[in-house]
Amino acid sequence: MKWGWVFLGVFLSLGALSWGEKGLEIPEYDGKDRVHALSAKNYKAIMKKYDVMVIYYHKNVDRNRSAMKQLQIEELALELAAQVLDDLDDEDIGFGLVDQKKDSAVAKKLGLDEVESIYIFADNEIIEYDGELAADTLVEFLYDVIEDPVEIIDNERELKGFYNMEEVIRLVGYFKSERSPHFIEYDDAAEEFHPFVKFFATFDPKIAKKLKLKINEVNFYEPFMEEPDTIPGKPYIESELVEYIEQHDRPTLRKLEPHSMYEIWEDDINGEHIVAFAEEDDPDGFEFLEILKEVARENTDNPNLSIIWIDPDDFPLLVPYWEKTFHIDLASPQIGVVDVEDADSVWMEMDDQDDMPSADELEQWIEDVLQTGTKLNDDFISKL
Amino acid sequence: MKWGWVFLGVFLSLGALSWGEKGLEIPEYDGKDRVHALSAKNYKAIMKKYDVMVIYYHKNVDRNRSAMKQLQIEELALELAAQVLDDLDDEDIGFGLVDQKKDSAVAKKLGLDEVESIYIFADNEIIEYDGELAADTLVEFLYDVIEDPVEIIDNERELKGFYNMEEVIRLVGYFKSERSPHFIEYDDAAEEFHPFVKFFATFDPKIAKKLKLKINEVNFYEPFMEEPDTIPGKPYIESELVEYIEQHDRPTLRKLEPHSMYEIWEDDINGEHIVAFAEEDDPDGFEFLEILKEVARENTDNPNLSIIWIDPDDFPLLVPYWEKTFHIDLASPQIGVVDVEDADSVWMEMDDQDDMPSADELEQWIEDVLQTGTKLNDDFISKL
Repeated sequence: MKWGWVFLGVFLSLGALSWGEKGLEIPEYDGKDRVHALSAKNYKAIMKKYDVMVIYYHKNVDRNRSAMKQLQIEELALELAAQVLDDLDDEDIGFGLVDQKKDSAVAKKLGLDEVESIYIFADNEIIEYDGELAADTLVEFLYDVIEDPVEIIDNERELKGFYNMEEVIRLVGYFKSERSPHFIEYDDAAEEFHPFVKFFATFDPKIAKKLKLKINEVNFYEPFMEEPDTIPGKPYIESELVEYIEQHDRPTLRKLEPHSMYEIWEDDINGEHIVAFAEEDDPDGFEFLEILKEVARENTDNPNLSIIWIDPDDFPLLVPYWEKTFHIDLASPQIGVVDVEDADSVWMEMDDQDDMPSADELEQWIEDVLQTGTKLNDDFISKL
Repeated sequence: MKWGWVFLGVFLSLGALSWGEKGLEIPEYDGKDRVHALSAKNYKAIMKKYDVMVIYYHKNVDRNRSAMKQLQIEELALELAAQVLDDLDDEDIGFGLVDQKKDSAVAKKLGLDEVESIYIFADNEIIEYDGELAADTLVEFLYDVIEDPVEIIDNERELKGFYNMEEVIRLVGYFKSERSPHFIEYDDAAEEFHPFVKFFATFDPKIAKKLKLKINEVNFYEPFMEEPDTIPGKPYIESELVEYIEQHDRPTLRKLEPHSMYEIWEDDINGEHIVAFAEEDDPDGFEFLEILKEVARENTDNPNLSIIWIDPDDFPLLVPYWEKTFHIDLASPQIGVVDVEDADSVWMEMDDQDDMPSADELEQWIEDVLQTGTKLNDDFISKL
């Protein structure tokens, strides 16, 4: 039974609603089982049936009632994602569960090592998804997965679009054509990071000139940086590109996104995160974000500085929890240092009625925090 | 029982996970009842307890099993929203249900007229929410509701933030101070449209000069327009501002947002919508959106032109359904005319490998569609 359609039928029979009024109804789960329980016996046959396989490697929940309920909720999110993607024309996307205890042999065969993660098998690559377990976030991520790893920039409007994507790590290269061996190395490197790092290329000398790129050259853009770094040592081979990106994959300022939130949160520095809350769609928040970007640009070479920017609009359900945990008011911008072990935190004092700190003041505050050491004890707090 | 906390306890006792690893867990519903069933007897007493009351005016579902299930899912979304907002410090936000059949007396007393809508009672205003019935979208909307209706622009960075919000209808006025009677009229008008239309003001002559505003003057910005219209006839009284906005509340180009999607969809022209799909975070989509904006800017005075821009990234669960219903591929930009009664549609032919249409070509296509008439019959389709 497909609820969505049943409702549509019911509404139509009442004569009250047209397609137009129900045509935008967000789908609900129809109750049909589509997520496979993978086992040593069946996993090969099931995975063969799909172009893309999405596997949730979960804890064993036997004898734990509340963990069992939690897993049920997670399964429902996967079922809804599977139902929605059932309608997709281009690709067959399958979903499966692997139990850490019961299916350890499958996990070993497939190379699943982090429990509570989702592994996506596509085009001979394994992509680890460590984001929100919600149908919409996961489905949106899967659309990115099935896209080509390299996007081609053909004209100036597309170039403007490239510049507009300042929130992610991006690379752009200039090559003769899609058949160039240098482009093929680049494309292979792109597959390794797809879809987390965005790869672009142009074959147009005019666009290359605007990007200040020589032939076969690749520029690396950190998030929020206006000036790129040219990757040294061209012509590059795949492994050199991969190595460069791996060495530069922790930006000075990065945005917390639902599709990678847990991965970023696990990537702390000495058990701490510098966290900035700022709502971009608000004059105060926008202003504070501009100051943050200025600080990041001036400190882009400091490996010990990595600020996580959280836009509260992206996580509405967590806002009251954060306000309570950190004793802050998220109606105005905030910056602080959070201990990831025990949620201890220190926040910069800002008078929300008055002017924001300058970039220099903000930089000084962060420097003090970093120099004072890694432990947020009372002594440290009293110095601030 | 609060699931989130129970799980946290369980995980901690296993010694495996710290706060940091669970600190970003999106809350799940804890099973406690917080949403009130309002009746003629209790509604006054219940509503008195809250600063803001959120009421879902729903159909009666007796004797209809599938409608009953649908309502249950909707109730769960409201329960989760209520649970999350329970932790909010500043405001007490209550939730209630009013049944169209059983509680018609309450509906009448409260002035609820559109069934399947959510009515928000705040500060003596009634706000109708006709968006996605999901906890996150509703909660984010409620944060906007409890903000001040007029935002003050104090400096150039905040002004940049104001310019950055091009997707919404915005007004900005220049006044002497918050005590100015002209500002008070403006603030009263803002309350009428809050939070759908964004109202800004500045008290700083330098900022006013940059906005080309004289004292007590208000500029009106249509979404995506670079040049504002100055509202004629100042000094204005509240009712004049309200009237002007009501006359200009259907923009030439508007973005479909989850929090107002059904309201926008119901606002068709002669039973049809011009719909454009474009993913902003993609060079092709960005390019097409730039062309759309150009067309909108050149046709801003045409009352018969209103294009709905949908970014597929905002509605991942609807993408396969739209692709199937409209027979289009949303991996590349699309523009078409949709009949809201029967979902009949005509789409512009665009070769996704080649160049996009120019603004002139797009305008011509839209003009042809509008001139050919309102009915998308086969005859009409064959002409395109």
